[in-house]
Amino acid sequence: MSTFYKRATSVFTKHPVVTKLLVVATVSSGGVVVYSGARPFNGAYADAGHAAGKRVNKKKVVVLGTGWASTSFLKNLKDPSYEVQIVSPRNYFAFTPLLPSVTVGTVEARSIVEPVRSIANSNGLDVEYREAECFKIDAENKKVLCRSTQDSKVGKKEEFEVDYDYLVVAMGAQVNTFNIPGVVENTHFLKEVEDAQRIRRSVIDCFERASLPSVSDKERERILHFVVVGGGPTGVEFAAELHDFVHEDLAKLYPTLKQYVKITLLEATDHILTMFDKRITEFAEDKFKRDGIELKTGSVVMKVTDKDISTKERSTGEIQSIPYGMVVWSTGIGSRPVVLDFMKQIGQGNRRVLATDEWLRVQGTQSIYALGDCATINQRKVMDDIDKIFKKADKKGQGSLKVDDFKEVVNDIIERYPQVELYLKKKQLNNFVQLLKNSQADEELDIEKFKSALSEVDSQMKMLPATAQVAAQEGKYLATCFNRMEECERNPEGPGRFREEGRHRFKPFRYKHLGQFAPLGGEQTAAQFQLPWDWVSIGHGSQWLWYSVYASKQVSWRTRFLVVSDWGRRFIFGRDSSRI
Amino acid sequence: MSTFYKRATSVFTKHPVVTKLLVVATVSSGGVVVYSGARPFNGAYADAGHAAGKRVNKKKVVVLGTGWASTSFLKNLKDPSYEVQIVSPRNYFAFTPLLPSVTVGTVEARSIVEPVRSIANSNGLDVEYREAECFKIDAENKKVLCRSTQDSKVGKKEEFEVDYDYLVVAMGAQVNTFNIPGVVENTHFLKEVEDAQRIRRSVIDCFERASLPSVSDKERERILHFVVVGGGPTGVEFAAELHDFVHEDLAKLYPTLKQYVKITLLEATDHILTMFDKRITEFAEDKFKRDGIELKTGSVVMKVTDKDISTKERSTGEIQSIPYGMVVWSTGIGSRPVVLDFMKQIGQGNRRVLATDEWLRVQGTQSIYALGDCATINQRKVMDDIDKIFKKADKKGQGSLKVDDFKEVVNDIIERYPQVELYLKKKQLNNFVQLLKNSQADEELDIEKFKSALSEVDSQMKMLPATAQVAAQEGKYLATCFNRMEECERNPEGPGRFREEGRHRFKPFRYKHLGQFAPLGGEQTAAQFQLPWDWVSIGHGSQWLWYSVYASKQVSWRTRFLVVSDWGRRFIFGRDSSRI
Repeated sequence: MSTFYKRATSVFTKHPVVTKLLVVATVSSGGVVVYSGARPFNGAYADAGHAAGKRVNKKKVVVLGTGWASTSFLKNLKDPSYEVQIVSPRNYFAFTPLLPSVTVGTVEARSIVEPVRSIANSNGLDVEYREAECFKIDAENKKVLCRSTQDSKVGKKEEFEVDYDYLVVAMGAQVNTFNIPGVVENTHFLKEVEDAQRIRRSVIDCFERASLPSVSDKERERILHFVVVGGGPTGVEFAAELHDFVHEDLAKLYPTLKQYVKITLLEATDHILTMFDKRITEFAEDKFKRDGIELKTGSVVMKVTDKDISTKERSTGEIQSIPYGMVVWSTGIGSRPVVLDFMKQIGQGNRRVLATDEWLRVQGTQSIYALGDCATINQRKVMDDIDKIFKKADKKGQGSLKVDDFKEVVNDIIERYPQVELYLKKKQLNNFVQLLKNSQADEELDIEKFKSALSEVDSQMKMLPATAQVAAQEGKYLATCFNRMEECERNPEGPGRFREEGRHRFKPFRYKHLGQFAPLGGEQTAAQFQLPWDWVSIGHGSQWLWYSVYASKQVSWRTRFLVVSDWGRRFIFGRDSSRI
Repeated sequence: MSTFYKRATSVFTKHPVVTKLLVVATVSSGGVVVYSGARPFNGAYADAGHAAGKRVNKKKVVVLGTGWASTSFLKNLKDPSYEVQIVSPRNYFAFTPLLPSVTVGTVEARSIVEPVRSIANSNGLDVEYREAECFKIDAENKKVLCRSTQDSKVGKKEEFEVDYDYLVVAMGAQVNTFNIPGVVENTHFLKEVEDAQRIRRSVIDCFERASLPSVSDKERERILHFVVVGGGPTGVEFAAELHDFVHEDLAKLYPTLKQYVKITLLEATDHILTMFDKRITEFAEDKFKRDGIELKTGSVVMKVTDKDISTKERSTGEIQSIPYGMVVWSTGIGSRPVVLDFMKQIGQGNRRVLATDEWLRVQGTQSIYALGDCATINQRKVMDDIDKIFKKADKKGQGSLKVDDFKEVVNDIIERYPQVELYLKKKQLNNFVQLLKNSQADEELDIEKFKSALSEVDSQMKMLPATAQVAAQEGKYLATCFNRMEECERNPEGPGRFREEGRHRFKPFRYKHLGQFAPLGGEQTAAQFQLPWDWVSIGHGSQWLWYSVYASKQVSWRTRFLVVSDWGRRFIFGRDSSRI
């Protein structure tokens, strides 16, 4: 029986929802998209205020980067009183959660990208884009130095400066190789669309090379050993996608090679998907075992040569050399050189990541904001401000206060220090007053007692993960601030300041975790949602949930339609194995 | 008004057929393709006889190349008594007539390719594919020497030999630079899918670079000057596609740059599309003038530097240096080095192109066939065989024959020498006998009179053009011969031999020209069909004809569906300008 038919019937009988999905995809290609596509595209191509003379008196906003953070910022910016310039070497936004799917052709690269000019023009603001790389931020003179990134065939590199009134640094991070020798030279990263395309070609290269008659069986085994380093969502998803590609599509085209294929996932800690619920980790590890994907946890990579990867077992110290055909490196991220250089300029030279305050403003600067993977929010400790907080509450300067006297500053505290709320939740306290009461009954508090009541609060400070979700929320938050800059200057809406007088202009950024997906291959997905309770879903159902959430999250009607139709194509025709 | 809406309404009102086409495309994505796709895919993935031991006593056929000729050969080969090995650096077949569309994203690269393994497996024969390049044909020892072409990251180059009983050379040709300095270094070719992808990135690079603030207006003009060299169908179609891309899509994303864009087509002869009917040439030249595409005919390229292209006017001898941003070189083809080397081996060293007989067998060899762009059929001249022909007719050795005495050999003559039929057609004669009668009334013919009657026949010998159509027909023809090799050995079906006794095993290859398309941009296409009369069609109608013919000609249901849905996508969303 033809594979297509098998695939189609099995799916249609098992999952009636597929029929619906296909119908939706089908109908969309005609009427529905024609209609609904018309709305978001309205004005998308309208001349976005490029007329000369319009730029007078506008505040210059320079945005570095075209990833999740900056795209979200651009899409939510509404105030026409800014003149925006975007500088990025990538003239498109990429829907990165689908990158692992692109590596094997479940989704096409072009389906997950959207030109930044389309996005920039969609809200009718004064936005210009420059395809260039910022190689220096000059905070003193309020300008960035840029270098063109086009292919040298068109001409030599251009360098130019761009002045700003506000700078939004959202250039993301780079892959962290932990200075392990040979990683840069011999492994594939999986951060950019080009990486995914290269991996796709490389997988096919391995299969084609293993098909050559002159290759020995041992060499064949080496070539078809695919190693993934890093047990995070990207690494796990890539390993799962690769397994599906090999077993669903390549096995038929290269029938004699199936027996030689091996996929290994190396993880330095003891488990994969550690950021997820334990049940998900267990399910994933079990599934990998069933699928024959070898999982080596507690295994640290020491060196990568062109044909071998050396690992050290954390428990035994044993060193092993594993021959491989292709390695995908997906371990973690580090700061880009231009950001590290900028950090030195502004006195953050001893940090590893750029630090901002809770309003996403870079600490030590006035008009520079940083969001997404290139920065972290350096939360203020309650204990650092404890004297000032007490003083604010103690209006009359009595040096000792009743619990009720704090009522006026409670909201400000809760808003200013998110760790307080987390601490209350952890301790199952209803409110701040209860926290004070708890330790002090109904007595009066002096500064020492106040300190002791709050002494453990700062333990709840949490670093936000470097995810698309965080970046997108930060971008949206910052755009909202920019939209209301003047209004909030007049009527500040943030919490009262403890160190100074007055209020903060804006409410600080607060991250809302919505949940996470981990596609595990074979139509199985694990999902974890932050509803009022933690909802974990594993299996077939979540796959469709995942499909629909990802389809709805796509940047534009174009990408949404393309991704859904790519899924349909894969369903019907399988993945393509042409080496392009 | 949004562009999408404009585009859609104008097309729907102007061309009701579009509605139908979209409906077809839409329905296809669901049920129709599900159903009809099932048939051609039946057995496509069946294990194609790879079981060990099956290879005993099979004739080894080695096919070099995965283009039109070899793919057509593979698709039509039915006889299971061959063991086929395909050697080609490209593990997919590409539908090359759509390459110009890929350069600007009207159609995606992946939509016009099909893995050669799918094609090879589709008829259930014993076919293996090796991704490698043949660098030497050793006709004496009946083997080819191959070198692997995978990326060096997977390992060093592998070299291996493949033995054959029959060799099918179908490796195509390479771009002819006419040894003009700078062409290889500075221009883009348009022969492979990778070329088209590079051109696409390069066009975007030019626009992005021209958007940089530091670039002068003069430099901007240079960067946005796109030059196409060669007025054949590929060059003309690329120029037209580029014009549409710039005006339909890029003009909206780069509104300030439109005024700087210029497209120039250089052609050394006096007209473009010279292989078409004059009306088509005129229409195309007019349309280009209206579109603002500059057409410089009679202009020979002398040199290409990284920023300038030097031309010489054939009429005046004037030398001009034209600054450019990108040049696409699409002038003609030349033999590959491995073919030139092979030609020396077999005594064809003084020729420019590999010569075969009318049965596609390489002249000077026994079991090597060549088809497609890498070879030409070296037609036998009637005048070279005239004595033998006369002798065959003159069974009794009288030295003088009546016209009626030739009746027995007429069919053999007509079949063996295609030029005879063309000559009769040109002279408007009904048959061969009439030709003889014409010159000789009813008298008897001796050899001299016979020679004089046929003296002009050879003027009608025609070289077949290097097109996909010719290659595909040759591939099909050769497969039919291979399928009936044994049968025709016993019962030869070809014309009687004049130089020797007996008959030829097969009828000689005869090309049937079906027509040609030249898409001219803006939904306009010129078509020329070889019906009993020459049918020329220009304008909107032919565009849809073109769409449907091309859609129906696609290699598989997969590519057919993908191309049609790409057209639909382009229609709705425009072309993507992301630099990937």
